[in-house]
Amino acid sequence: MTNQLTAALSYAQEHKDQILDELIEFVRIPSVSTDPKKKTEMQRAAQWVANHLLSLGFENVKILPTARHPVVYGESLKAGSDKPTVLIYGHYDVQPAEPLELWGIPPFEPTKHGENLYGRGASDMKGQVVASLKAVEAYAHTGDLPINVKFIIEGEEEIGSPSLEKFLTENKDLLSCDFAINPDTGMIGADTPTITYGLRGLAYFELRVTGPEHDLHSGIFGGAVHNPAQALCELIAGMHDENGRVTLPGYYDSVRSLDDEERAELARLPLDETFYLEQTGAPELFGETGYTAYERVGARPTLEVNGLLSGFTGEGAKTVLPAKAMAKISMRLVPDQNPDEVYKQLKRYLEENAPPTIHWELEDLNQGDAAITDCNMPGVVALSQAMETTWGKKPVYKREGGSVPVVAQMQKILGIESVLTGFGLQDDNLHAPNEKIHLPTFFNGIDTFIRYLDILGE
Amino acid sequence: MTNQLTAALSYAQEHKDQILDELIEFVRIPSVSTDPKKKTEMQRAAQWVANHLLSLGFENVKILPTARHPVVYGESLKAGSDKPTVLIYGHYDVQPAEPLELWGIPPFEPTKHGENLYGRGASDMKGQVVASLKAVEAYAHTGDLPINVKFIIEGEEEIGSPSLEKFLTENKDLLSCDFAINPDTGMIGADTPTITYGLRGLAYFELRVTGPEHDLHSGIFGGAVHNPAQALCELIAGMHDENGRVTLPGYYDSVRSLDDEERAELARLPLDETFYLEQTGAPELFGETGYTAYERVGARPTLEVNGLLSGFTGEGAKTVLPAKAMAKISMRLVPDQNPDEVYKQLKRYLEENAPPTIHWELEDLNQGDAAITDCNMPGVVALSQAMETTWGKKPVYKREGGSVPVVAQMQKILGIESVLTGFGLQDDNLHAPNEKIHLPTFFNGIDTFIRYLDILGE
Repeated sequence: MTNQLTAALSYAQEHKDQILDELIEFVRIPSVSTDPKKKTEMQRAAQWVANHLLSLGFENVKILPTARHPVVYGESLKAGSDKPTVLIYGHYDVQPAEPLELWGIPPFEPTKHGENLYGRGASDMKGQVVASLKAVEAYAHTGDLPINVKFIIEGEEEIGSPSLEKFLTENKDLLSCDFAINPDTGMIGADTPTITYGLRGLAYFELRVTGPEHDLHSGIFGGAVHNPAQALCELIAGMHDENGRVTLPGYYDSVRSLDDEERAELARLPLDETFYLEQTGAPELFGETGYTAYERVGARPTLEVNGLLSGFTGEGAKTVLPAKAMAKISMRLVPDQNPDEVYKQLKRYLEENAPPTIHWELEDLNQGDAAITDCNMPGVVALSQAMETTWGKKPVYKREGGSVPVVAQMQKILGIESVLTGFGLQDDNLHAPNEKIHLPTFFNGIDTFIRYLDILGE
Repeated sequence: MTNQLTAALSYAQEHKDQILDELIEFVRIPSVSTDPKKKTEMQRAAQWVANHLLSLGFENVKILPTARHPVVYGESLKAGSDKPTVLIYGHYDVQPAEPLELWGIPPFEPTKHGENLYGRGASDMKGQVVASLKAVEAYAHTGDLPINVKFIIEGEEEIGSPSLEKFLTENKDLLSCDFAINPDTGMIGADTPTITYGLRGLAYFELRVTGPEHDLHSGIFGGAVHNPAQALCELIAGMHDENGRVTLPGYYDSVRSLDDEERAELARLPLDETFYLEQTGAPELFGETGYTAYERVGARPTLEVNGLLSGFTGEGAKTVLPAKAMAKISMRLVPDQNPDEVYKQLKRYLEENAPPTIHWELEDLNQGDAAITDCNMPGVVALSQAMETTWGKKPVYKREGGSVPVVAQMQKILGIESVLTGFGLQDDNLHAPNEKIHLPTFFNGIDTFIRYLDILGE
């Protein structure tokens, strides 16, 4: 072990309390990117990251504006041109906290219970951003960074990174590097270090159905017109067949199929039916016939209803025949599906299936491509070694059901691969009430990053 | 014309401004019975009615408590036992005003535009209550009432009159009368006086579907479990077949069929497809195959979705796989369907069709029987004469798609028939934003009531 590595690991060990305090400070900022009323909070979160980079001696630190929320950039190139340059990607924005009544704590007042820190964004991904910043700090405060590091921390990941493509295109030179590290995926378990090699893409829509021009009395007009809420339900019900397959025309045409070898590899992960039953609490599992639950989540495309709203939803009874009904509908995509094609498929489904008794309107809310990484690239191999040292065991390789559109964008625009990892756990309640991060795993994550930087510098 | 009738009609004519001011005063009270926060307003509205009865010299005026909102009672029996006694029914409660953003005025700040007075409850049915009170006032302030009159004005009609059955049972003697007048139904047009002889019943439910124990990330878990919003849509979509018929088991078994004679009568009303298209603004009409729109509304049972709620419904995108989904579902019933039977039919439908991948829960929110009135009873004949004098034409007889459960309850408990009328118009936006009452028709209603009381006293 180099002296530098030893010193950096000791630093992290000795500053645990301070690191936790700073994580709490970061999580306390309600940086909800989808909420127009949180613009100031978004700015505060970006500034928090920038200040941190400055305190680490990073250069060229800037908060770069985009159409909506800014990107924070900073670099440390002192290791020199014979050392590799990595780009660490993260995001400072978080999901909305609603429904608030299901939280055990106020979501932006981070609270430690046992081994966990609760709070919106603790795991996704402020904890991950802090882990990477603190690994760098461990070197910066004890000596020199073994490699060149650039940080790019954006503020629009939770709304689908709409400004990032333009940003990457306009800042190609600034962002030039050997590969990217993206710690926005999670671990299978606290004792199972994990590297992700596949990500699903996303296509997210709002479907609005209208019928009568205004709400009607369900007695006086019920029987005369097509109820838009009913029509919406009929359209949604038709989007899956009896085998749980999505019925949009052409939906599976460009889906890359799983070969037997990969299916066998995936089957070895501890992600069986019991796991999904326990994690979800659902009475039974459900999905596309012919695939295991994990295959359906990791390697097959889906279509989910994310929200429904129509008519009277308060307490008691109101005999209204609603004038309109709305659904948020999104698809998780796999290689080689294309979100633009999926938009056309959904539109064609609606054109073919919506009855003339209603009007409909489809809004494209955001999208991202699916991605697959090569597990033999040096950046993955080095991470695997760092993990093995930290946990005393080799990492597992998994596909992730979630979407990180930036991975495909960096591949396309910057020509670089991303190493996907992260130290969140499956039960961290991402995007749900009571989000939390497991602190022992978070600190293992810092140690892993410290070792990873060291190996990359050799 | 008797001197008394002449004097009463003149009184109404001369006090139009004052009558309008008092209607505005009454509509200004936001007596929303379904809203637990409006308990004080409900009390105020009841007191308003009681004060009015006292000012007319009514006796035995009282605000009688029930489990939820009180009933106002008052009587004038001075006409003597050789004159008939009628029970005038009304309600002082109103529907919720939401969605507020679709109103052109604040819903509880009644505002006159042209010939209409806008405000929640103006037509349903504070205007009708005021019309009957003012007809009585016209006699009370110019001489004597030609018949005995009892008023019963309740506060729970818009939530299905849950306390009324008990109230009627406990106050049978107090309420004894020859027949009831119920002005809670409307007119086909401002120049078409209307008597209603059929009403639909109501069965209203909340259906709650749950799946996972908490909201899930649609990427990490999408594909593993049955989305409750999707499952709810599938259940709702299955509640109608391709002919627009309700599929609940046994739903049509006790539906009284329309004979050719009645169908021919109903076909003469000016309620054709064009009427329903204009009133609703729907792109096309829709409903049970084999029946006209008016038959479907007036004489056939329906099933409507009154509300839908699940997951994320705010602006933008949230990739949540919701833990639960809710629908408000109600059926309009016709003779001889029974709401309790319909509850069992819906339950059986769910038992037979809900998949094991979700849980469901059904709450019975309220119900009421359908009703049919004999058009040859003296109270109907007298009203017909009063209408003919006011409008210069005979009234039409119609079936109403709405529900007035009290009609069936009074028949069952008090053994009395109800004469169903009212001076609201089809475009009054009942239960919808921008509810209004047409003032010339409202004043014609007062004149009609004055003449009606006179004829009944002969």
